[in-house]
Amino acid sequence: MIGRSANRSLLIVGSVALDDIDGPFGPHKDILGGSASFFAAAAAYFTNQVQIVAVVGEDFPQEHLDYLESRNIDISGVQRVPGESFHWYGKYSDDLTSRETLDTKLGVFADFKPQLSERQRDVDLLFLGNIHPALQLEVAEQVKAPGLVAADTMNLWINEFRPSLEKTLRAVQLLVINDEEARLLSGEHNLAKAAAGIRKMGPRSLVIKRGDAGAYLFHEHGTFAVPGLPLEDVKDPTGAGDSFAGGFMGYLAYSGGTDAAAIRAAMITGSVMASYLVEQFSLDGLRNLSQEAIQKRFTAFHRLSQFEHLTL
Amino acid sequence: MIGRSANRSLLIVGSVALDDIDGPFGPHKDILGGSASFFAAAAAYFTNQVQIVAVVGEDFPQEHLDYLESRNIDISGVQRVPGESFHWYGKYSDDLTSRETLDTKLGVFADFKPQLSERQRDVDLLFLGNIHPALQLEVAEQVKAPGLVAADTMNLWINEFRPSLEKTLRAVQLLVINDEEARLLSGEHNLAKAAAGIRKMGPRSLVIKRGDAGAYLFHEHGTFAVPGLPLEDVKDPTGAGDSFAGGFMGYLAYSGGTDAAAIRAAMITGSVMASYLVEQFSLDGLRNLSQEAIQKRFTAFHRLSQFEHLTL
Repeated sequence: MIGRSANRSLLIVGSVALDDIDGPFGPHKDILGGSASFFAAAAAYFTNQVQIVAVVGEDFPQEHLDYLESRNIDISGVQRVPGESFHWYGKYSDDLTSRETLDTKLGVFADFKPQLSERQRDVDLLFLGNIHPALQLEVAEQVKAPGLVAADTMNLWINEFRPSLEKTLRAVQLLVINDEEARLLSGEHNLAKAAAGIRKMGPRSLVIKRGDAGAYLFHEHGTFAVPGLPLEDVKDPTGAGDSFAGGFMGYLAYSGGTDAAAIRAAMITGSVMASYLVEQFSLDGLRNLSQEAIQKRFTAFHRLSQFEHLTL
Repeated sequence: MIGRSANRSLLIVGSVALDDIDGPFGPHKDILGGSASFFAAAAAYFTNQVQIVAVVGEDFPQEHLDYLESRNIDISGVQRVPGESFHWYGKYSDDLTSRETLDTKLGVFADFKPQLSERQRDVDLLFLGNIHPALQLEVAEQVKAPGLVAADTMNLWINEFRPSLEKTLRAVQLLVINDEEARLLSGEHNLAKAAAGIRKMGPRSLVIKRGDAGAYLFHEHGTFAVPGLPLEDVKDPTGAGDSFAGGFMGYLAYSGGTDAAAIRAAMITGSVMASYLVEQFSLDGLRNLSQEAIQKRFTAFHRLSQFEHLTL
């Protein structure tokens, strides 16, 4: 973990899963995936108080859980229950810009009903991974006095469970979604209008991820944008958004503040973690990062985007 | 024109044309278009030595030429010859993200053979608009000692006239194209690899435009990215790339330098001019900008993208 951390506690509710991925680099089977895995692996560099609430089946390899534990992630909230683990089967296009879901086996995740322990209810920062909005709300209501409630969502919930999602959004301060989801949720193609519409639904802050084009933050202090860092070797974009969110929330746990400067640094930190993640399969890109490596890429984003403010 | 300019001279060879545009805001007929028009209208805010070399037909409205002249643009190189003007007919999708070319009438542009005057041959900065690469090279060879030769190109020339284009690229220091063109020219989908490949073809600097996602610069000083500024009211993206290039080159004419800091500021200035351009039809968005308006949006790009460089 990076030094001098305010070390606030951070809870992620989401999936710990297995992925089968095919694409230009050939098939990869039974690799560690799931929103909570990617999120926690990224966040654990910034606070040693990361907790996961999730569920896995009897088939889930113990080595994956051991790995998460080795990163000082509290996995006491990862229940192992009878049945099969959540398993996603996807195939990427040759240029990695699009992917097809070949199959999704929910397994034990279908009956996931997160119940938080006393310690989990005391958490400082809460991230509601991409699960049913009614479950997201149940979790948010169990947490006593969170400093920040952030959430992800997806097309399925927007299309099929909108009333439930709208109720959840009223309890969320920060929503982290991609551009397609923002357009779908708001009914506006224009991202500035989409952001304004979504911020009226509840979240006072909104992050819109745009894949390799970077990410935008819309909040009370205006708009902030991080361009994507051009990377020569991208192998697997799976989990990029979750590792972005993990780096973002991890940075807030580390900094102890949520002022405008901290949130900008959190956007960069999220981008740093996602940039390392996509260079390898599963979350291998986040396994062995040094503080120097994280700092180096933070500096790379700075060099990429900074310019002098001139008086013309 | 903005004050304190180094006021270097800038020549654009390209089209001065008529556009018929249809889309979500209804039809707009016979409006002023063409790469040289957009480019020059943007550049003229930064130097009063902008010259256009182009050709128009007998049908070309004098008011359009009068407008360009009123902006202190030297249009003595715009020949009027018998025949019809270059006329583009396009239709945008409802969300303005894609467009279809309904018709392109080359008219007098089909026989365009740019011949430069003595004064034009002495120009400081040269921009080769999107014309046949063999013509681009002829123009580049007529200019005596340009401080910078920059160029645009398009899919047609990349696909059908590659040997000619490759020859031209060896005489070009800066290429300004969009992401699709970069991928087509390099044969690489990954933009970092595409940029590396194109820079081996001749241009030591490369700007890759990504529409509303901003623009990237790849050059000897590394990579610089400008995110797109989220705009609520976009009406007509036609000419955005040309006005970007005009603002970019205009800034270099204004600053007098081409060092790393000047080139970053040029990227921002290009983005400023394109952002104003797309808010109205034709080049109306560039007709009446004050120095304060340009400064204000330069500041908006600064606020959008700046963050503190932290030691983690």
